[in-house]
Amino acid sequence: MVLDSTIRLDHGSGGKLSHRLIEELFLPHFNNSALAVLDDSAVLEPESGKLAFTTDSYVVDPIFFPGGDIGKLAVCGTVNDLSMSGAKPKYISAGFIIEEGFSIADLERIIISMKNSAREAGVSIVTGDTKVVQKGKTDKLFINTAGVGVVPDGVCISSNRAQVGDVVILSGTIGEHGIAVLSQREDFNFHTDIQSDVAPLNSIIADLINNNVELHCLRDPTRGGAATTLNEFAGKSNTGIIIEEEKIPVKKSVRSVCNLLGFDPLYIANEGKFIAILPERDAEKALSIIKQHPYGTNVEIIGSVTTEHPGKVVIHTTIGGRRIIDMLTGEQLPRIC
Amino acid sequence: MVLDSTIRLDHGSGGKLSHRLIEELFLPHFNNSALAVLDDSAVLEPESGKLAFTTDSYVVDPIFFPGGDIGKLAVCGTVNDLSMSGAKPKYISAGFIIEEGFSIADLERIIISMKNSAREAGVSIVTGDTKVVQKGKTDKLFINTAGVGVVPDGVCISSNRAQVGDVVILSGTIGEHGIAVLSQREDFNFHTDIQSDVAPLNSIIADLINNNVELHCLRDPTRGGAATTLNEFAGKSNTGIIIEEEKIPVKKSVRSVCNLLGFDPLYIANEGKFIAILPERDAEKALSIIKQHPYGTNVEIIGSVTTEHPGKVVIHTTIGGRRIIDMLTGEQLPRIC
Repeated sequence: MVLDSTIRLDHGSGGKLSHRLIEELFLPHFNNSALAVLDDSAVLEPESGKLAFTTDSYVVDPIFFPGGDIGKLAVCGTVNDLSMSGAKPKYISAGFIIEEGFSIADLERIIISMKNSAREAGVSIVTGDTKVVQKGKTDKLFINTAGVGVVPDGVCISSNRAQVGDVVILSGTIGEHGIAVLSQREDFNFHTDIQSDVAPLNSIIADLINNNVELHCLRDPTRGGAATTLNEFAGKSNTGIIIEEEKIPVKKSVRSVCNLLGFDPLYIANEGKFIAILPERDAEKALSIIKQHPYGTNVEIIGSVTTEHPGKVVIHTTIGGRRIIDMLTGEQLPRIC
Repeated sequence: MVLDSTIRLDHGSGGKLSHRLIEELFLPHFNNSALAVLDDSAVLEPESGKLAFTTDSYVVDPIFFPGGDIGKLAVCGTVNDLSMSGAKPKYISAGFIIEEGFSIADLERIIISMKNSAREAGVSIVTGDTKVVQKGKTDKLFINTAGVGVVPDGVCISSNRAQVGDVVILSGTIGEHGIAVLSQREDFNFHTDIQSDVAPLNSIIADLINNNVELHCLRDPTRGGAATTLNEFAGKSNTGIIIEEEKIPVKKSVRSVCNLLGFDPLYIANEGKFIAILPERDAEKALSIIKQHPYGTNVEIIGSVTTEHPGKVVIHTTIGGRRIIDMLTGEQLPRIC
């Protein structure tokens, strides 16, 4: 690579150096015919059907953390948001806001990470944009990804579709992403080996849909954690949700850190888990499909949808109590994604 | 509005305050059925056809400038990128990265500006995301917009399609956006009344396509200016381009500022202009269609495509000389968009 070693303001000028950055760094990694045209829009030919469209900006601090980095997070996050509508993710855009002086080697590492995640998820990064901001006017690197997917005919998943009698499935252990990022912060002074769970979930969801599992609600519990997602389902569907604390999978190491710091794993961000609400008759089939995937080995049925306390989420605790689980209030861990 | 007066970190938490920000500020303004579902992806039903997909991040400084603001810029920029592929813009995503302490009144002013631009362009803002970053870790507000549009059958516009004999059309005066933003910087100490030209161009492009004007190349000359766009066309099409300096429309006030500061208007960013390359037989029809639009009154044929000097752009100067116009080298004006 014949580029400089750090990002300069004129890498964002739209002129010669911008072109070199794109042609020498982005294009070789994100290589696909739609992107290679380098016009301002990618022109695409998805199969017919409804489209899903989503966006997220990523401001995670630090940008590299155990189990992933901002690039993997940006691709998986958008793949997962599309998947949660039942869509097959197809195309991703990538918008970079870079601080002047940022290391080009780090940028390349992130780009390679995005390429690998896109390849695993079977999506193409077809359009993008790069802006450079003066040193001190932003914090290293922010990435926005938007995504387009195709919703198969007959699929209708939405957070307002929970029905009384449905089961609540959680695809695996919670809290790893938030704690893994937190563990890299300067003021975090004890050792853990917790890795982020960041992963693309589209192949699990595709298997559920292809095997005719009827999915009512589906969401990846990121910011706000599982508690906030369950509250969104209960509120929008106007039903109650009951969950069993002893069924909620949490790794021992995550539970230890949470106990030490006074966090509840139900409010910690995940980046490779989903919560599904679906009819009881499909529960066993769904479980066995999810369990076959490396990202779903710890799947559990954690609760059910009820007529009681509509709009609210109640937890049956391991010691036999009941309490209401509210949405996240306040900000527990800023810049976790 | 019962929100606080400034943005707090927990407005980006994904929890309660995030929900209130979305429900009390974003939803009422961007109101449409796809967004109102508030799931992670919008599910859309565009007419069939090829899709265009684009993204841009906006880091303009200052965020309010004569003739527009970062919100208007973000919507028009993405509408224009879609339009330049011949697509009819349909759906827009909006990702906000906000500095802690940012004024909610300013945020609402920007949201209203986005709403108005979206309405003018006939697009819906269907999905979005908000992140909040600690004070001092970013500069006020960055916005990413991505867009999806539908390309009509038979339309095939790309920067590699310029053909010898084609004419080069510029839709109006150049340089206003860059100079308007520059005029608001602290170190700019003389008065001008130059306004940004930021505007949605989709209705002009739709009229050209609906009237069967054959369009080969189309681009809005933003960062890097008209000179960089023309170089992209010449380079990708492997043809020469000759332009006539006396035909290039530049407002007197813009020319004065450029003379004073040593800038060339050909390299200054525009946000409401386009350059089209099309067959000579359609030139008069195209001119009369563009001229009818308020954003196209100063349209001119500024040059032609030639077999000479393939890949290069040559200007015939008003004093009878010839010189090569290269792409922008270096960064003239950082954070102009």
